[in-house]
Amino acid sequence: MNLEEIGEFGLIKKVKPLCFIRKKNIIKGIGDDCAVYEIDKENAALLTTDMLVENVHFLRNKITPYDLGYKTMAVNLSDISSMGGRPSDAFLSIAIPGDITVEYLEELYEGMMFLGMKYNVNILGGDTTSSKTGLVLNIALTGVIGKDNILYRGSAQSGDKIYVNGYLGESAAGLDILLKDIDLNYKLKSHLIKCHNMPEVYIDEGIFLSESGLVNACIDLSDGISSDLLHICEESTCGAVIYEDKLPVSKELQEYTKSTGKNPEEIILSGGEDYKLLFTVKKDYSGQLEKDYFEKFGQKIICVGEIIEGDQIILKQKNGKERNIKPTGWDHFSSGT
Amino acid sequence: MNLEEIGEFGLIKKVKPLCFIRKKNIIKGIGDDCAVYEIDKENAALLTTDMLVENVHFLRNKITPYDLGYKTMAVNLSDISSMGGRPSDAFLSIAIPGDITVEYLEELYEGMMFLGMKYNVNILGGDTTSSKTGLVLNIALTGVIGKDNILYRGSAQSGDKIYVNGYLGESAAGLDILLKDIDLNYKLKSHLIKCHNMPEVYIDEGIFLSESGLVNACIDLSDGISSDLLHICEESTCGAVIYEDKLPVSKELQEYTKSTGKNPEEIILSGGEDYKLLFTVKKDYSGQLEKDYFEKFGQKIICVGEIIEGDQIILKQKNGKERNIKPTGWDHFSSGT
Repeated sequence: MNLEEIGEFGLIKKVKPLCFIRKKNIIKGIGDDCAVYEIDKENAALLTTDMLVENVHFLRNKITPYDLGYKTMAVNLSDISSMGGRPSDAFLSIAIPGDITVEYLEELYEGMMFLGMKYNVNILGGDTTSSKTGLVLNIALTGVIGKDNILYRGSAQSGDKIYVNGYLGESAAGLDILLKDIDLNYKLKSHLIKCHNMPEVYIDEGIFLSESGLVNACIDLSDGISSDLLHICEESTCGAVIYEDKLPVSKELQEYTKSTGKNPEEIILSGGEDYKLLFTVKKDYSGQLEKDYFEKFGQKIICVGEIIEGDQIILKQKNGKERNIKPTGWDHFSSGT
Repeated sequence: MNLEEIGEFGLIKKVKPLCFIRKKNIIKGIGDDCAVYEIDKENAALLTTDMLVENVHFLRNKITPYDLGYKTMAVNLSDISSMGGRPSDAFLSIAIPGDITVEYLEELYEGMMFLGMKYNVNILGGDTTSSKTGLVLNIALTGVIGKDNILYRGSAQSGDKIYVNGYLGESAAGLDILLKDIDLNYKLKSHLIKCHNMPEVYIDEGIFLSESGLVNACIDLSDGISSDLLHICEESTCGAVIYEDKLPVSKELQEYTKSTGKNPEEIILSGGEDYKLLFTVKKDYSGQLEKDYFEKFGQKIICVGEIIEGDQIILKQKNGKERNIKPTGWDHFSSGT
């Protein structure tokens, strides 16, 4: 069977029963952004791992080694933030092709550690090997969290408001600019490319959400709303409504779509690698959380929809019509059929 | 600067200062087979990660997916065993080229979990991605150990006897047979190839050694004695003597060297991927440990040398002469100059 036929998540479903021997201290195995296991009465450990492969996740001539190091750390930190955790230590495995210099690697480590140090994350170990083909980077990242505060994908409740914590679609626009060498004004181009190559990380925001007691479910937006919301809905056995007119379009994304003739909301729904947080808030407390979050971070969280019963994900379009959203986010294997 | 000029361990030395922010609960960072950090008063957590890259660590047409899965788990378990620990959970990152089928992956997971289940190791999570080139497998593996029992590389003492727990060089012979399609009798060939593709794992043996209180330092033999003993000597600030006539040559390795005109001891010194344990034993207790180990496992441990003062690693040859052993084990980058 060709992998395209079942896709990445089909494969995970297929091998999951093979992988899981339940042990006493395991709180969550496969199926969330991190695995979770008990440390003591109050605390749990988190572990996540993410791999970046040359020509799949990045093109070496489109990202500086510093930014690539930064991004490798960022995508892993993002998984910790989506559970509401605090990161601890990183373990880097790196496969290095023959044409990469020591200076390239030093810059890469510097970018990685710039972000690591911000969150007091060590690189505590790893594996260094050569590669006959592309550069491959894998980080395994540990974290800690209070056992009562863990944010899962599977805890959304019907009636919850769905929030994101920033503009979306800018990373996908940045990628498009990089791949097609689209000519836009320098400032706009730099901003969108930076969104793609050096995504923000929301550790403090994730901890705040987890400690608020008002958030039911959370995931980081790595594959686009349509894919990532589907994970929440599948794990929580619920549906969702998204309001097209509420999707947060930055003025930079608007400017880019004007120049390229694209639809900003389509980019937001299917565009990957925003690494913002997508979370659901208990229905009567969304106003309070909006206020508290703004007071703490000086940034708004944006309500984009609502959790409903059933298993449909419905987009209420600006034209008043409704349509079912089929996930159109990034799947590494699926042929999209 | 070209990476060849400084080699894998040169690179690690270069980036190590950049990577390490000491935290209270970290017992050991970069520089051993696993990172070690405190869990509670009695216990420490271990974490190791190892990456297998197609055409560097394996050729897809020379190993079955089942064996490849087994080996990916084995090399990581080996790092836990060399610290004396008990493995807990595995996290698999896998980059999959387009020509790999679902059936291939199922076999690979089966091989991995065959060995995982033997030691009650879950695959608790990971990352699944596509690859434009080769298959890449990375496991991050956690473990636990009593804080007083941890076996480090850096605790060898002058006067310690140096031991290994089995025949060496067979994996290197197996690799040679695979690469050159050497024609030998079926049984011999199968045995040596199996040593390369499906190395034994010594978790119980590592725990036994760590709990014996008689072992000072330990490492797993991934790069050949000359390289791995150098790690022990460098970290312990000591030298070593190896007796050529004590190196354990199996009858299969002897038969292979007879057919190929090679020197078995040379293969043992420089050949990688044996994944046996190399450990140093307090000088007055080696007889006792030999006896206890044999009683427990029905297998002999073999004394191959002695830790000495200084920083030289000397081979006492069969002809009575001495020579310094320059590491000739596997370095992924070094040009060997």
